[in-house]
Amino acid sequence: MRFIKITLIILLSSCHVFGQSEDEKQIKAIYNAALTKGKAYDWLNYLSNQIGGRLSGSVQAQQAVEYTKSQLDSLGIDRVWLQPVMVPKWVRGTPEFAYFETAPGITSDVPICALGGSVATPLNGIKASIIEVNGIEQLVKLGKEKIDGKIVFYNKPMDPTLISTFQSYSGCVDQRYAGAAEAAKFGAVGVIVRSMNLRLDDLPHTGSMSYGDTAESERIPAAAISTNGAELLSTTLKLSPNTKFYFKQNCKLFEDVESFNVIGEIRGSHYPNEIMLVGGHLDSWDLGDGSHDDGAGCVQSMDVLRLLKESGYRPQRTIRVVLFMNEENGLRGGNKYAEVAKNKNENHVFALESDAGGFTPRGFSFDCSESNFEKVQSWKRLFEPYLVHMFVRGGSGADIGPLKNDGMVLAGLRPDSQRYFDHHHAENDTFEHVNKRELELGAASMTSLIYLFDKYGIIKPPKIKG
Amino acid sequence: MRFIKITLIILLSSCHVFGQSEDEKQIKAIYNAALTKGKAYDWLNYLSNQIGGRLSGSVQAQQAVEYTKSQLDSLGIDRVWLQPVMVPKWVRGTPEFAYFETAPGITSDVPICALGGSVATPLNGIKASIIEVNGIEQLVKLGKEKIDGKIVFYNKPMDPTLISTFQSYSGCVDQRYAGAAEAAKFGAVGVIVRSMNLRLDDLPHTGSMSYGDTAESERIPAAAISTNGAELLSTTLKLSPNTKFYFKQNCKLFEDVESFNVIGEIRGSHYPNEIMLVGGHLDSWDLGDGSHDDGAGCVQSMDVLRLLKESGYRPQRTIRVVLFMNEENGLRGGNKYAEVAKNKNENHVFALESDAGGFTPRGFSFDCSESNFEKVQSWKRLFEPYLVHMFVRGGSGADIGPLKNDGMVLAGLRPDSQRYFDHHHAENDTFEHVNKRELELGAASMTSLIYLFDKYGIIKPPKIKG
Repeated sequence: MRFIKITLIILLSSCHVFGQSEDEKQIKAIYNAALTKGKAYDWLNYLSNQIGGRLSGSVQAQQAVEYTKSQLDSLGIDRVWLQPVMVPKWVRGTPEFAYFETAPGITSDVPICALGGSVATPLNGIKASIIEVNGIEQLVKLGKEKIDGKIVFYNKPMDPTLISTFQSYSGCVDQRYAGAAEAAKFGAVGVIVRSMNLRLDDLPHTGSMSYGDTAESERIPAAAISTNGAELLSTTLKLSPNTKFYFKQNCKLFEDVESFNVIGEIRGSHYPNEIMLVGGHLDSWDLGDGSHDDGAGCVQSMDVLRLLKESGYRPQRTIRVVLFMNEENGLRGGNKYAEVAKNKNENHVFALESDAGGFTPRGFSFDCSESNFEKVQSWKRLFEPYLVHMFVRGGSGADIGPLKNDGMVLAGLRPDSQRYFDHHHAENDTFEHVNKRELELGAASMTSLIYLFDKYGIIKPPKIKG
Repeated sequence: MRFIKITLIILLSSCHVFGQSEDEKQIKAIYNAALTKGKAYDWLNYLSNQIGGRLSGSVQAQQAVEYTKSQLDSLGIDRVWLQPVMVPKWVRGTPEFAYFETAPGITSDVPICALGGSVATPLNGIKASIIEVNGIEQLVKLGKEKIDGKIVFYNKPMDPTLISTFQSYSGCVDQRYAGAAEAAKFGAVGVIVRSMNLRLDDLPHTGSMSYGDTAESERIPAAAISTNGAELLSTTLKLSPNTKFYFKQNCKLFEDVESFNVIGEIRGSHYPNEIMLVGGHLDSWDLGDGSHDDGAGCVQSMDVLRLLKESGYRPQRTIRVVLFMNEENGLRGGNKYAEVAKNKNENHVFALESDAGGFTPRGFSFDCSESNFEKVQSWKRLFEPYLVHMFVRGGSGADIGPLKNDGMVLAGLRPDSQRYFDHHHAENDTFEHVNKRELELGAASMTSLIYLFDKYGIIKPPKIKG
């Protein structure tokens, strides 16, 4: 018995080693293809420098739809199509303007930009006393007496001690998203929000905000101020608490317009009805050219299909790339995609989103069952030669969220996050801040994960008797 | 027995957990201090923007010595001093100029820069036929017949498929370092070397070269050409093999001058004679301001002393920061430091260098005994919350190399390497390309490693009877 047992163990471990070695070879071929024949960087150059910022409903968003569809068409994959979706059309208008006034005639200009979805100020702007709060909680404590008739200045900074800057962002983005609606309840006439940026600089960072159920007549204008501007304003308020603030913006929300999710797929050779999705979002804010957010995720996702082919792998399952429209200010593309998938009874087994910048990939987050997460962890060592170490449980991506069900695996690419919020939603989210190799390593990491899930499948949940 | 055994295991594991938890707290305090009270970025701002490129023997190198000494003095540590060292003084002179000529009068300018240590061209420059080789090996194969009287164009690119760009660099930097000496043997009149850069751009990258034992009269001028220039020249040579190349440079090597290593230390509370060194090199190439190479390593090393203090830790061993002079073109500072240490019979137990850029730290390399490496690996999990995952065996740093002996541990900080060679030795190695948080995370990682080695010591090699 003992002899047989040992032999078996040896045999089994050889098989194991042999199997792993095939995977190692395939993954090496994928990384080599990405680093020598990748197309992601060229595509991003076009999206960023020939088209530019692609806010939902804009001419540029439509150009991006047409361009990416034409590029997918040129890949000779099995099917490419556009999925119609109605999206909001918010327009910034002429450049915003703001200053604070410590005494009559003594003013300092500060850089601001309207938050996405904000209403305009009156034509001549708003001027009022300004009160600083360290987030919504403090606003509520101050109450109507202190807030009424004033502009609220939300100045809660991102926490610099957290290693994941996304965690710092989560810790204070509520003041940007809901700050205006909350302040309006106490009679504020406008809000100015510290930009979601860990760095001290002069660029205001836009981003979505919502008035929730605030009546149209009660909505107050909201703008972001650069971090240097916020520091200056805060210091000034300590010295001159009667400082007044002026700002002017003429942004406007139009009727919804038609736009599209851009979709392409390679049909699976063995399980064509099992769909593995990879995607990013095609829309971007208007201030920069949207290279990191999320041009990078789009071109990486497009390259996944090419890199599988270039590395000589024929997928067993259907691999579908989806470039979602309107992640930034509505999530209409993600919701529409999930709705259509449900109506068609499509079986999505896996979805991967890249929407955290085109920086060096550090790992993936997984939103899935314990058994699938265990499976994924057994692949970790395959990624270590590429310095991709972080396999964690957590959120995947906004666009693929609506697809979620218990049976599937959702995943998100997790690039290095240190520089992301220096650029996020600001005019310096531009092509020259994306490094070609970092972008390509991300595409290769995504392709490798898709390869493994395609080859080994996911663990389906046990069927529970009704 | 069973009960006692189990209790013991529980007790032992609690101790283990308790001990680890102390380390976790200390390391968290170090990272928090770096990210909220770090001084590295401000120091680097001064070094880069008030002083600039600090080539050995230059006025700027002397200013950097004085500035960093004054900053160490202001920290109130136990001792700060300058260690004299004679260094070479090579000066670039007026900007270099080059073009190639496909037919008489049909020329294209290309960006070049003299390699550090190169001789000048004759006053009016050199013009000759040019021959492309894919590295030194191919040069040797072509031999005197093909090379004599020509300019040799070394065009072996860095291998893009390697994940560590330092490995790609090692694979072809011999053509820069020894290319001129080798080509001179076959009668070449000059060499042009493809810049050590993975990116295609217009910036030539300098770097050290050596004539070895080539007689002075036989030395030929050597320059680097930008990667775009190299591609253009290579394509042109395929179409027009009779293309001539012209270049002009008037660099010069002067007599050695006196400079200094800048040194500061905190005396150990328990083992003052055990020295733990942390350092970088203060000199830099002259084209940029030397922010990544190696301003970053210097200011991180300086901050290690501060961060230990800020995080409330009193070292048992002597922690010494050394800012080495002349790493780039001579290693005189590193050699001098080791020589003095040997003469004084100083006991260095540990040395850590940061000389791979101020990018997000990914890990450390260790040059030490197997038992010390095992020890280090047991600390790996303490670094994982900071996304520092890579503990590998390998080279540490050029400056600390001369200190090496069997009894000590040498280590190198390993930051993300993808962008490093985009900036290395070129005019875009400048302050704006260093991210504050990335720099600070590096300083925190270094401080944490120093803390662990200080607290637990190193494993000394067994004494062998003579």
